[in-house]
Amino acid sequence: MISIEEAHNLIMASTEALPACETALDDALGLVLAADIVSRDAIPSFNNSAMDGYAVRAADIADATPESPVNLSVVADVKAGDVANVPVKTGQAVRIMTGAPVPAGADAVIRVEDTMTEAGRERAAFERAPAASDKLSPVLVLRSIPAGRNVRLAGEDVKPGEIVLAAGQTLGPADIGLLASLGFPKVPVYHRPRVAVITTGDELLEIDQPLEPGKIRNSNAYSLAAQIKQAGAIPVRYGIAADTPAAARELFQKALAECDVLLTTGGVSVGEYDYVKDVLADIGAAKVFWGVAQKPGKPLGYWNFKNRHIFGLPGNPVAAMVSFEEYVRPMLRRLMGQRLLFRPAVTGTLVSSVRKRPGRVHIIRVHVDKKGAEYLVDSTGPQGSGILRSMVLADGLAFIPADAESMPAGSSVTVHLITLPEDH
Amino acid sequence: MISIEEAHNLIMASTEALPACETALDDALGLVLAADIVSRDAIPSFNNSAMDGYAVRAADIADATPESPVNLSVVADVKAGDVANVPVKTGQAVRIMTGAPVPAGADAVIRVEDTMTEAGRERAAFERAPAASDKLSPVLVLRSIPAGRNVRLAGEDVKPGEIVLAAGQTLGPADIGLLASLGFPKVPVYHRPRVAVITTGDELLEIDQPLEPGKIRNSNAYSLAAQIKQAGAIPVRYGIAADTPAAARELFQKALAECDVLLTTGGVSVGEYDYVKDVLADIGAAKVFWGVAQKPGKPLGYWNFKNRHIFGLPGNPVAAMVSFEEYVRPMLRRLMGQRLLFRPAVTGTLVSSVRKRPGRVHIIRVHVDKKGAEYLVDSTGPQGSGILRSMVLADGLAFIPADAESMPAGSSVTVHLITLPEDH
Repeated sequence: MISIEEAHNLIMASTEALPACETALDDALGLVLAADIVSRDAIPSFNNSAMDGYAVRAADIADATPESPVNLSVVADVKAGDVANVPVKTGQAVRIMTGAPVPAGADAVIRVEDTMTEAGRERAAFERAPAASDKLSPVLVLRSIPAGRNVRLAGEDVKPGEIVLAAGQTLGPADIGLLASLGFPKVPVYHRPRVAVITTGDELLEIDQPLEPGKIRNSNAYSLAAQIKQAGAIPVRYGIAADTPAAARELFQKALAECDVLLTTGGVSVGEYDYVKDVLADIGAAKVFWGVAQKPGKPLGYWNFKNRHIFGLPGNPVAAMVSFEEYVRPMLRRLMGQRLLFRPAVTGTLVSSVRKRPGRVHIIRVHVDKKGAEYLVDSTGPQGSGILRSMVLADGLAFIPADAESMPAGSSVTVHLITLPEDH
Repeated sequence: MISIEEAHNLIMASTEALPACETALDDALGLVLAADIVSRDAIPSFNNSAMDGYAVRAADIADATPESPVNLSVVADVKAGDVANVPVKTGQAVRIMTGAPVPAGADAVIRVEDTMTEAGRERAAFERAPAASDKLSPVLVLRSIPAGRNVRLAGEDVKPGEIVLAAGQTLGPADIGLLASLGFPKVPVYHRPRVAVITTGDELLEIDQPLEPGKIRNSNAYSLAAQIKQAGAIPVRYGIAADTPAAARELFQKALAECDVLLTTGGVSVGEYDYVKDVLADIGAAKVFWGVAQKPGKPLGYWNFKNRHIFGLPGNPVAAMVSFEEYVRPMLRRLMGQRLLFRPAVTGTLVSSVRKRPGRVHIIRVHVDKKGAEYLVDSTGPQGSGILRSMVLADGLAFIPADAESMPAGSSVTVHLITLPEDH
């Protein structure tokens, strides 16, 4: 039996990010960039208007006031997507929509709200597009603005040749938008690992079957698939392996051919029907460790096979889930190139005393109640490793040290926070 | 123009959870239960062993010690999934695997580690299954245990008729596992809304096209799709509507027939090419509001059409993203039956002073740096609403009140945290 720290170190020592691949931008949310992204373009690529209004020469309207407006002739009408075919000369303006290119000669955009049309002296509503045949009316400008006002300069967001996103960045919605604006329909990212789930045991029923004496439903395949999905990877269920080495061997080999990671549950305690270890040895998987000084999750094993990672998880539902949280999830995150591998760890205060046998670290499922800066933690109830309820109610996993026999209320414990506020 | 609070209130007043539907358990992660789940079964459904060992009568081994072990005859061998066909009588034991039913007559399970086989007096390794023809060897028990030890009682996790998960619960991996163990291959949940995205504007290019003068790439369709996905809903892109009312009308009607929510971007400022409002009025959508006293995001509109929700989002990339965060995301969460609608809000401390014109609330994209219990917030740089960079770098949105003209460094501001620690 090895310690929790040794187990983590052994797993991480054999884990590196999966090969990068070009992925459609639409599928890249939450994935990690495998290379720097260098812009080929300037963003914006042209000086453009930040407002609906008129492109003007600021000097022309330096003396404009509501009482003494400046009259400019309007020589063109540019909507977004169009380009003015005439420059703005002294005494002239170009009607311009938000986002449209600022024409040559103009150095500022006066907002439509700060103008009036000559006819009727009402505020230009800009409500209707003029017909192509419409004569462009002159505009009255009601105030002055400095040069540059309401003009977005080419390259003010991004310059050509600039690294806009660095390798290692996890892509969020804004990054996806930036990559779209820069013309990257595909991006180099670390892909989502495919994670095979095989449950073992003649006692298992499919989840739509009625219970029979001695049988339980195959819940691990569902809780693990959900944990895999939550970690950002792709679960692939291979069903229940019948309790014979030949059946297991065939299923394991198929899964290892198709997936990056194989999770098995059950079959790794000292019970004599526990053949998973033998089957893995038989197909040539290299055992890295078996047995961790923790409760639940003592019968946890880890193997390498070529560039595949194999976990033998305990069969008990809670032990399987806790082992996933603490060992499989960080490994999956490293495969995906993430830098932050572990759940947030905080120091919590025990609300009630805890008693245990010395020898193994106990990983207790706890409620976490944040009072100011303090995290109050309390057991979610009976902690039997078959009792999923303890996990359903848990916000965190609290670690009671191996050598402790009891910890009084008020003791400090390390807690890994396994749910986010939004999960409730 | 209405206030941010009024806009929220108007949106929420017209939003309730979508109808519940039965969904495969595999697809239910992150969704909200629409009804209480009542167990039909006891979990575990039978008394079973928590250990590999021997089912015994505790009274038989009350005097067992390593020096003076108690010899029991082994009358059966039960692995998980099997049922013992003989009861345990005085002086007898049944070999038993973890999870196997505890046979009648037995009231405790002694761990294999606390026994020896008679032959050779070595610890039973339990490493190999005996052939069916093997004679079962007697076992020597090395210590006493109380009745009940290592026996998991039927119903200790869940009792029949018990509400195991309540309506309103967001389903996490442990809930999924519990539902699987209780035989629920389908569960009643609020489904993920389908959210149509239509971008408008003749200035838009598809993201794989080279830039041309006056044109920009259609990044909003990608950033919004990513935001929709991140909120747990399903994005459906309908492409770019050409700048004519007829083209927009056709596309809007198709989207409204197929989706629960329609997001349009662009086309809702006061510009004369802004026909989105007219088209929506024409198809009979009821305008709830248009114009919110905020920057960015002033030209934000919201309409109802039958039981559909329509947002007219600003065309500027940052304004569209901020509007999604603050208005669309909470509405989508309510459609999905979530109770927690908004991002975590904290009070932050400004690292640098902020200046603005009074009138509208400014929503500034900020870095958030947590120092102890304090959140230090600082602008991510130029805040032009076309500058996606300000959003790429943001951990939060800070709210500068409408009437403020400046806030010195050290001022307290409300901050919505838009990224999670794991996003980095």
